[in-house]
Amino acid sequence: MKKTIALLPGDGIGKEVVDVTVDILKAIAEHFHHQFQFNYGLIGGDAIDQKGTPLPEETIAICKDSDAIILGAVGGPKWDQNPMELRPERGLLALRKELDLFANLRPIKTFESLLDSSPLKKEYVNGVDFVIVRELTGGLYFGKPSERIVHEGEDAVVDTLLYKRYEIERILVSAFEIASKRRKHVTSVDKANVLESSRVWREVAEEVAARYPDVTLEHMLVDNAAMQLIRSPKQFDVIVTENMFGDILSDEASMITGSLGLLSSASLSSSGLHLFEPVHGSAPDIAGKNIANPIATILSAAMMLRQSFGLEEEAKAIEKAVDNVLNAGNRTADLAEDGKAVSTKQIGEEIKNAL
Amino acid sequence: MKKTIALLPGDGIGKEVVDVTVDILKAIAEHFHHQFQFNYGLIGGDAIDQKGTPLPEETIAICKDSDAIILGAVGGPKWDQNPMELRPERGLLALRKELDLFANLRPIKTFESLLDSSPLKKEYVNGVDFVIVRELTGGLYFGKPSERIVHEGEDAVVDTLLYKRYEIERILVSAFEIASKRRKHVTSVDKANVLESSRVWREVAEEVAARYPDVTLEHMLVDNAAMQLIRSPKQFDVIVTENMFGDILSDEASMITGSLGLLSSASLSSSGLHLFEPVHGSAPDIAGKNIANPIATILSAAMMLRQSFGLEEEAKAIEKAVDNVLNAGNRTADLAEDGKAVSTKQIGEEIKNAL
Ligand SMILES: CC(C)[C@H](C(=O)O)[C@@H](O)C(=O)O
Ligand SMILES: CC(C)[C@H](C(=O)O)[C@@H](O)C(=O)O
Repeated sequence: MKKTIALLPGDGIGKEVVDVTVDILKAIAEHFHHQFQFNYGLIGGDAIDQKGTPLPEETIAICKDSDAIILGAVGGPKWDQNPMELRPERGLLALRKELDLFANLRPIKTFESLLDSSPLKKEYVNGVDFVIVRELTGGLYFGKPSERIVHEGEDAVVDTLLYKRYEIERILVSAFEIASKRRKHVTSVDKANVLESSRVWREVAEEVAARYPDVTLEHMLVDNAAMQLIRSPKQFDVIVTENMFGDILSDEASMITGSLGLLSSASLSSSGLHLFEPVHGSAPDIAGKNIANPIATILSAAMMLRQSFGLEEEAKAIEKAVDNVLNAGNRTADLAEDGKAVSTKQIGEEIKNAL
Repeated sequence: MKKTIALLPGDGIGKEVVDVTVDILKAIAEHFHHQFQFNYGLIGGDAIDQKGTPLPEETIAICKDSDAIILGAVGGPKWDQNPMELRPERGLLALRKELDLFANLRPIKTFESLLDSSPLKKEYVNGVDFVIVRELTGGLYFGKPSERIVHEGEDAVVDTLLYKRYEIERILVSAFEIASKRRKHVTSVDKANVLESSRVWREVAEEVAARYPDVTLEHMLVDNAAMQLIRSPKQFDVIVTENMFGDILSDEASMITGSLGLLSSASLSSSGLHLFEPVHGSAPDIAGKNIANPIATILSAAMMLRQSFGLEEEAKAIEKAVDNVLNAGNRTADLAEDGKAVSTKQIGEEIKNAL
């Protein structure tokens, strides 16, 4: 199989974790006789520094010419004081919108070998296995107006939570599709006792549910969901929710597994061009030190092989290798006891060898 | 001291927990030679059934004629299909707005005797002691438009996150005031990398911080905050945030202590008329069974004695009694092992006796 992969390392540890991931993809290509071509693009702070914009046109073109995209991370203190349009995050948000990457999938699954790393007790997290399906191109993130105004004669500021009905429908369809291949349970999270958008969300969820008679639908208020994720995370199979709620709940849920350094994600579009990235950020404090955990990005690449290229066996090979390397006790600094950590490159080598 | 207290039991377990709390307040009045007069008002589903509206004018009048308000809880499946204006929550939201109860304080403090009840490991929760200061009368909860619209020719829905600058300022002032009497650390939670309202929030936070040179201010993104609450809850002293973020984070934080049945809250206005209520809801599934945990409401009454009436000794007496009763091993069903639970009334009696 011949595929073109756009690589957007971005800022901070983004470069390090993407480098290691590319090594592994090359090993996969060799072993399974595929041809992967890698095209690098600039995004985030790096792009601001080199091109004066967080998402250069070239980068969009590189993505559109590719079969899938792997992103590292964006952001850092260097650009924190920049005006909004010149901040690294804008690059990522604009790319999501530009490529219509509306469905962000974040699997939360505990690793047998890392059960002790969670702040939660073992009996709460053992066997947790769910997916958060976050809407990624609507809601408060993109609604207009988003500006300072004078309201009733006073200084004020407004943001707008806007959804078109079809945007709500397609993300719910994604969630039901995923659930129908899993344990057939969808938890739709909203705030229907306060927000009109949530009431529409709930209606649409009911409509979509009617088309999937073998999948059960449960509605849960977002405040309760934030509690239930800690109280009994095993109850969930597929959680579907709007953009901002999904941002908050998925970072919270990451704590179940013990480290953000393990969590992969896929952002899917209807065009078939999808983006894969670790859930963690650019971690400027540890950037360039060869200590970041590359596993989240490596597992994102496995998601890419499965989801974008249909390479199930290859995806499994990576996941298996990661499991074996963790079972053998290899830990990067985020998970290791003092003085026992292996480096970014070392754990990458171990995983490559375990393939 | 002579005080008038408005009692709004509301729905579900609201009545049971308020009943027990009134018993305890009567015991306090007797013991410390105060006169508390109790005036009952209708709110929520109960008010809908009896008066056709979730917040009757009489109830507002009763509140305004009182020195403080104790609320039980509102809501239940009976009214879930009602149109928005006839839902129980509307009564609570309208009361918050009507009385300008803008500062919702939710203390999160672990009980020595209940450390094992948390889903989190003991070493994570032992010694946790912080307050969430949630803005309660602005943001997405009250912004207009909040309605179905046609947008770019398509069915859509919009909600509005609106803040006047002074609303942001006064909640931050509340937080800094509280922090200056505690460990002098404020964590201001926002989503400044996405929302314009958060950027104004951050600016105002900096302005207010400049007036409190002995209090340190830290900004934290809401997704990170959702994670940090689980990862290292001890880092927090005072968390201040907008309405919706506060709703989500405070329910999440309740899991640190192990049960929502223990968490009290105060909603403060600038007029001096404050409302006190448990953080938990009306729990329709266990209503009328005499098994609800009344401690959250009892501790809310203690907050009232301290905050509204300046009765520090009396507040401490209640808190001490609750501690003793928990230390002696008394547990309601939410915290007990099977078959070992005491009833709502029993634990109320125990606390009264321990005064
Ligand atoms: C960087 C930021 C804008 C982004 C978001 O809020 O979506 C990040 O937190 C994420 O979850 O991917
Ligand atoms: C009942 C509901 C409207 C309310 C809220 O969202 O504010 C509740 O969840 C709370 O936290 O007091």
